[in-house]
Amino acid sequence: MPHSTAVFGAAGFTGALTARLLFRHPSFELRALTARSDVGRRLDDLYPHHRVPLTLEELDLDRHGDVEAAVVAYPHGAAAELVRDLRERGVRVVDLSADFRLRDPAVYELWYRKHPAPELLPDAVYGLPERYRDRIRKAHLVANPGCYPTATLLALGPLASEGLIEDVIVDAKSGVSGAGRAATEATHFVTVDENITPYGVPRHRHTPEIEQELGLLDPGGAELRITFTPHLLPLDQGELVSCYVTSNGALDEVDLDRLYADAYADEPFVELSTSPPGVRDVRETNICRISVHRDGHTGRAIVFAAIDNLWKGAASQAVQNLNLMFGLDEGEGIL
Amino acid sequence: MPHSTAVFGAAGFTGALTARLLFRHPSFELRALTARSDVGRRLDDLYPHHRVPLTLEELDLDRHGDVEAAVVAYPHGAAAELVRDLRERGVRVVDLSADFRLRDPAVYELWYRKHPAPELLPDAVYGLPERYRDRIRKAHLVANPGCYPTATLLALGPLASEGLIEDVIVDAKSGVSGAGRAATEATHFVTVDENITPYGVPRHRHTPEIEQELGLLDPGGAELRITFTPHLLPLDQGELVSCYVTSNGALDEVDLDRLYADAYADEPFVELSTSPPGVRDVRETNICRISVHRDGHTGRAIVFAAIDNLWKGAASQAVQNLNLMFGLDEGEGIL
Amino acid sequence: MPHSTAVFGAAGFTGALTARLLFRHPSFELRALTARSDVGRRLDDLYPHHRVPLTLEELDLDRHGDVEAAVVAYPHGAAAELVRDLRERGVRVVDLSADFRLRDPAVYELWYRKHPAPELLPDAVYGLPERYRDRIRKAHLVANPGCYPTATLLALGPLASEGLIEDVIVDAKSGVSGAGRAATEATHFVTVDENITPYGVPRHRHTPEIEQELGLLDPGGAELRITFTPHLLPLDQGELVSCYVTSNGALDEVDLDRLYADAYADEPFVELSTSPPGVRDVRETNICRISVHRDGHTGRAIVFAAIDNLWKGAASQAVQNLNLMFGLDEGEGIL
Amino acid sequence: MPHSTAVFGAAGFTGALTARLLFRHPSFELRALTARSDVGRRLDDLYPHHRVPLTLEELDLDRHGDVEAAVVAYPHGAAAELVRDLRERGVRVVDLSADFRLRDPAVYELWYRKHPAPELLPDAVYGLPERYRDRIRKAHLVANPGCYPTATLLALGPLASEGLIEDVIVDAKSGVSGAGRAATEATHFVTVDENITPYGVPRHRHTPEIEQELGLLDPGGAELRITFTPHLLPLDQGELVSCYVTSNGALDEVDLDRLYADAYADEPFVELSTSPPGVRDVRETNICRISVHRDGHTGRAIVFAAIDNLWKGAASQAVQNLNLMFGLDEGEGIL
Repeated sequence: MPHSTAVFGAAGFTGALTARLLFRHPSFELRALTARSDVGRRLDDLYPHHRVPLTLEELDLDRHGDVEAAVVAYPHGAAAELVRDLRERGVRVVDLSADFRLRDPAVYELWYRKHPAPELLPDAVYGLPERYRDRIRKAHLVANPGCYPTATLLALGPLASEGLIEDVIVDAKSGVSGAGRAATEATHFVTVDENITPYGVPRHRHTPEIEQELGLLDPGGAELRITFTPHLLPLDQGELVSCYVTSNGALDEVDLDRLYADAYADEPFVELSTSPPGVRDVRETNICRISVHRDGHTGRAIVFAAIDNLWKGAASQAVQNLNLMFGLDEGEGIL
Repeated sequence: MPHSTAVFGAAGFTGALTARLLFRHPSFELRALTARSDVGRRLDDLYPHHRVPLTLEELDLDRHGDVEAAVVAYPHGAAAELVRDLRERGVRVVDLSADFRLRDPAVYELWYRKHPAPELLPDAVYGLPERYRDRIRKAHLVANPGCYPTATLLALGPLASEGLIEDVIVDAKSGVSGAGRAATEATHFVTVDENITPYGVPRHRHTPEIEQELGLLDPGGAELRITFTPHLLPLDQGELVSCYVTSNGALDEVDLDRLYADAYADEPFVELSTSPPGVRDVRETNICRISVHRDGHTGRAIVFAAIDNLWKGAASQAVQNLNLMFGLDEGEGIL
Repeated sequence: MPHSTAVFGAAGFTGALTARLLFRHPSFELRALTARSDVGRRLDDLYPHHRVPLTLEELDLDRHGDVEAAVVAYPHGAAAELVRDLRERGVRVVDLSADFRLRDPAVYELWYRKHPAPELLPDAVYGLPERYRDRIRKAHLVANPGCYPTATLLALGPLASEGLIEDVIVDAKSGVSGAGRAATEATHFVTVDENITPYGVPRHRHTPEIEQELGLLDPGGAELRITFTPHLLPLDQGELVSCYVTSNGALDEVDLDRLYADAYADEPFVELSTSPPGVRDVRETNICRISVHRDGHTGRAIVFAAIDNLWKGAASQAVQNLNLMFGLDEGEGIL
Repeated sequence: MPHSTAVFGAAGFTGALTARLLFRHPSFELRALTARSDVGRRLDDLYPHHRVPLTLEELDLDRHGDVEAAVVAYPHGAAAELVRDLRERGVRVVDLSADFRLRDPAVYELWYRKHPAPELLPDAVYGLPERYRDRIRKAHLVANPGCYPTATLLALGPLASEGLIEDVIVDAKSGVSGAGRAATEATHFVTVDENITPYGVPRHRHTPEIEQELGLLDPGGAELRITFTPHLLPLDQGELVSCYVTSNGALDEVDLDRLYADAYADEPFVELSTSPPGVRDVRETNICRISVHRDGHTGRAIVFAAIDNLWKGAASQAVQNLNLMFGLDEGEGIL
C-alpha cells in the first residue's frame, strides 16, 4: 500500500516539481498540496506541464499533517517551525530549505537568523545519498542539500576523502529557476536574456554548507576555506560547477580517473564522462555528470559537475531520499 | 543651439531608450529625466548599457516643463493630463502612449477609459512619418504609433492605398521588452524561455488603431475589420508581423514588387527585401524591413514586416518625429 | 515477450528520440540502431541525455531486417526503398518521412520526386491516431504525420468534420530541432538567437499533406486551399499553430467549446485549454494542447494548438502508432 | 581626406563587423572587402544588420593592396603570409589573428605551426591600447589581442603591474559568435541552447598569450602559470572573465578600489563598477566593464571583466588601434 504524503509549499518551482514526481510515484500517494500563495488554484493551472490535478490549499496541520511523509518546500528560515510541527506528529520529513543543513546553529545564525528549532539538529541527516545513504535510511528528518552544494560535493568528494584538497575555487553557473518563482528585476526576461552575471559576491550563503561537508570528508579533519562564486545564466534549468583544486604536488601521483571511477562505481545517479559535461546532458534527470581533468601546466585538478538544479539539486533528490527512508528502491519514480 | 528637451517617464524601457538617443543627439540638449519609480537613481545605474549619467527626478512641472520639446513615456491613460499641462506651457510633445492615437474619443473610451483631454485630439497628429510627414513637420503634439501598428501599417500601407485589402489577418510576434519593465509572472524568464504563447485573444487593443489608419488609407473609405493576434517570443527586442491579405481577385493584376518599390522609393527607414525579414536584421535600428509575396495557390498577398519594437516601434520613431517637428534632418541621431 | 524492433536512421533528432523511447519501452526490445552517419559511435556519446548505450551500425538488412517492428527515420525520398525492403521481409513499419503520407503519387512527385514505391501507397495508413485509430491497429505500414500537419489537423479536425471551414490561414511557428541535425547557416546559433524568420514562403511542402487530410474530413468532400506559413523560433523543441478560420456566418450558431469537448472527450493525448497554449506546456510529451476562440469582431474562429515537434510531431507519435499496431495500450512507454 | 582601407576576410563575423565600422568611419574610406568564401555576394545580403552595400571579392593583391590601411581577419596560421605581402607594399596592418601576438616563435609553433613570417615579429605591436598606446601610435603592424586575453589583461593589469599576482585562475565564459561563423555540431542551435559547456580543457591556446603579457607586466619579471578555462554560453555576443587571484597576504594592505580607479582614470573604454558586470552592459560597445572584490574569507581578490567579444574583443578594438596608428581621436567611429 502506498505511503501517504503531502507537499508543503507546492506553489514554488521545487515544491511543484516534487508534487509532480510524487503524484506519479508508485509507492507514494500524494494526499495534499499546501501553499502560501495561489491558494485555491489547481497546480495544473499554474504549471500545466506538471499535469497534477490537485488544488493548492491553505495549511491546516490537523488535516495535512496526517500523512506518513512530508516534503517541505518553504523558504529558508520559514521551514523550521513547520518541520517541528510535522515531526511532533511523527511525520517523516524531507526539508528542502537550508534550515537543517548546518550542524552548528551559530553558523546558521550568522547567515540567516537565530535558529528556530535547534533541538532537531542532532537528528537531522544531510540528504546527500552518495555520502550518507545508510543514515538516510534510518532518518526521520532529512535536510535536502542545496543545489550548488550537491554538485560541488559530488564533484569534490573523491578528492576530499583522500585529503587531496589544499585549496579550491568553485566557479558556479545556474539557470534562472534557481532564483525561484518570485517575479523581480533579477528574474525579468529582459534582465537575463543574452546576459551572464556573477552574484552573491564575495561570499554566497551556500559556502558554509559546502565547507562543512568538505571538512567532514577530510581524513585529517582539516578546515577548508573555499572561494565560491555563482553566476546567473540565460537558461531555465541546469547548473554547472567548475572546481579548481590546488594540492601542492600531492595530486601528481594520483590516477584521477581511477579515483573517480572507484568512488562512483556503484552510484546509480553519478555519471562519469571523459569530456566536460553540459547541463543539457542532465536536464530533467536525477543525474550528476562529472568529468575530472589534470592541468599538467599548473599541477591542478579541474573537476566539472552538471546537474539539473530543480531535479538532483532539489525535487528528485528529495524523492531519492524519501525512497531510502521508506526502504524502497532508490530510483523509484525518478528514473 | 540645441533645443532643450526632457523625457517624462524615463524609468521604463521606451523612456530610457529615448533618453539615450536624445542624450547623444547633436541638436537636442537633454535637460531632465522624470520618473514615477526609481526616483533618485541614475539612469546609467538602472540601464548601464544606455550610458546616460543623469538622475531620475520626481516630476516638477515648473522646473521640468521649461523645455522646448518633451517626450512623454507614461502608461496609457496616465499620459493625457501631463501632455495637456505641457502643451499649456507651449512645449512641443511626442507622446508614446495610446492617448492621442485614436481620433474618436468614444473608441478610446471603449478600450481604455473616458478620455482625459479630448480637446487636444483635433490637433494631435499620428506620428507615422512615412504617412504623415508633412503634418508632423507642423505639429505641436504627435501621438507616436504603437509598435504593432507601426509594423502593420508599413506592411499594409501600399495595398490599402490602392484599395486592395478586402480582408486581412495579422499574426504578430513580439519580444518581451514590448511587455514593459514590470516584473510579473508573464515576464519571468522561466515563463518565456523556450516558449511561445498567443495573448490578447480574441481582440487586442491595438486593433482599433490599425483599423482606423487602414480605413483612412482606403480610397473608397471602406471600414475594415481585421483579425490581429499577438504572440510573445523568447527574445528581448524585435517584432514581426505576418499579414495575410485577401482581395478576391483584385491582386492578380498587380505587380506587388513594383507597388512596394514605388511606395517606399524615397523612404530612408523602410527597407524592402526579396526574402522574408528576420527581426535580427533590424535590431537596434529605426528601420522597418518588409517583404511582399504572392501566394499563387490561394491568390493571397503575404506581407512580412520586421522592426525593433523599442526603436522604430517607440523611441527612435519618437526622435524621428522630433526631428521633423524641429526642421532637422529626419535621421539625425538615429542612424 | 517483448516485440523485437530496430530504428533505421537513428543518428538524427527524431530517430534518436525514438530509440530512447523504445529502449525503455516495456513491450519492445530495441535490437539495433542503424545510421548513415556516425557509424560506430554510441548513441549515448552522441546524445548523452537519451542514455541509450547502443552503437550506431551501418545498414545490413540481413541482420537488421530480422525484427517484428521498424521505425524508419530517413529523409524524405530516401525512406521509400528501405520501407519496401522491410515490408518484403514482413516487418511492420512506421515511416517518419513524407514518402507514404500523400495518397496521390502525382502530388508527391510535384513536391519531391517520382515516387519510388507507389505500389505500397494503397496499404499505407496515415498515422494520426485521433483520426485513423482503427485502421492503424490493422496496418502494416504507417506513414507518421509531419509535425506541422499533426498540430494543424488536431486543431482543425472538429471544424473540418462539420464542414465549417470555408477558408483557413495557418501561421505556424517551430523550434529549431524541426530543421534537423544538419549544421547549416540556418541552424547556426547566431542565426537563430534573438530572431524569428518566416520560411518556406509562399508555399511550404507540408501544405498538400494538410489539404489532403482536411479534404478527407470535409463531409461534402470540398477541396480546400490553405495558406500555410511556418516561422523559425529561437527555441529547440516546440511547435505552435495559429489557425484563422473563415466560415461566412456558419460559425455563429456553433458552440465551439462544446464541439471541441465532444470531439476530444476520449482522447488521451489531446488537452483542451481555455487560454491559449504555450509550447512549454507540452514540452517532452505526446500531448497536443488546444484552445479555440470566437473572434466576435470578424466572425472568425481562431484555434491554437501546441505540440512538441520531436515528440507528438514525430517520435512519440511513432511509438503511439506502434502501440496500436501491436495491440498494446496506446500510451505505453510515452506517458 | 579619409584614409583608404580594405578588410581582408570580411565574410566572417569579425571581418564583417570591422567592415561595418570602417564603412561608417568619418576618417576612413572602405575601398574593398575580400573573402575566401561567399565571393560575389554582397555583405548586406550576408549580414543585413551591418548594412554595408559592398561585394565580397576574391583576393587580388594588385588591386586590393593599394590602400593605406588593412585589417586582416584570416584564421590563425593563414594570416601571416597575407600580412607580409601587405607590409611589403607599405600597407599599415591590424591583424586579428594570433599570428603576431606571441613574441617567441617557438611558443607559436607549439600551439599552431612553424611561424610563416618570424621576421615581422620584432616590429609587431600587441594591440592593447590601454597598455601599449604609445607604441601602437607608431606601429605599422598591430597584432590585435584575442578576445579572452583582452578581457583578462584588462581585469588583471592593475594587480600584475604591482606584482600582486602569485597565482590566478581565470574562469571565462563566451557567447557563440566567438566560435566563428562555421556551421558545426558545436555551433548548432540545439547544441548550445539551454546549455553551458566547458571547452578547451585542460589548456586553451589563449593561455600563452595571457601568460606572456602578464609576465611582461610583472615588475619582477616573474613567470606566471595560469589556469584558464573557457565555457560556451547560450548567447551570441558577450564575454565574461571571472579571475581568482591568490597573493599570499600581499593583498591585505592594498586598497583595491583605489588601485583600479587610478589605473583606469583616463581610459575612455574601461568602466569600473561596484557590482559585478553583466555582458549585456557592454553589448555592441568597445567598453570593458570591470569590478574588483576582496574575498575576506580567503584573502583572495576576485576580478570580473565583461566585454563584447566581437567589438572590444576584436573589431572595434581593431578600429581603436587604427585610430591610434593614424593619429586620429581614439574613439572615432566606435563610440
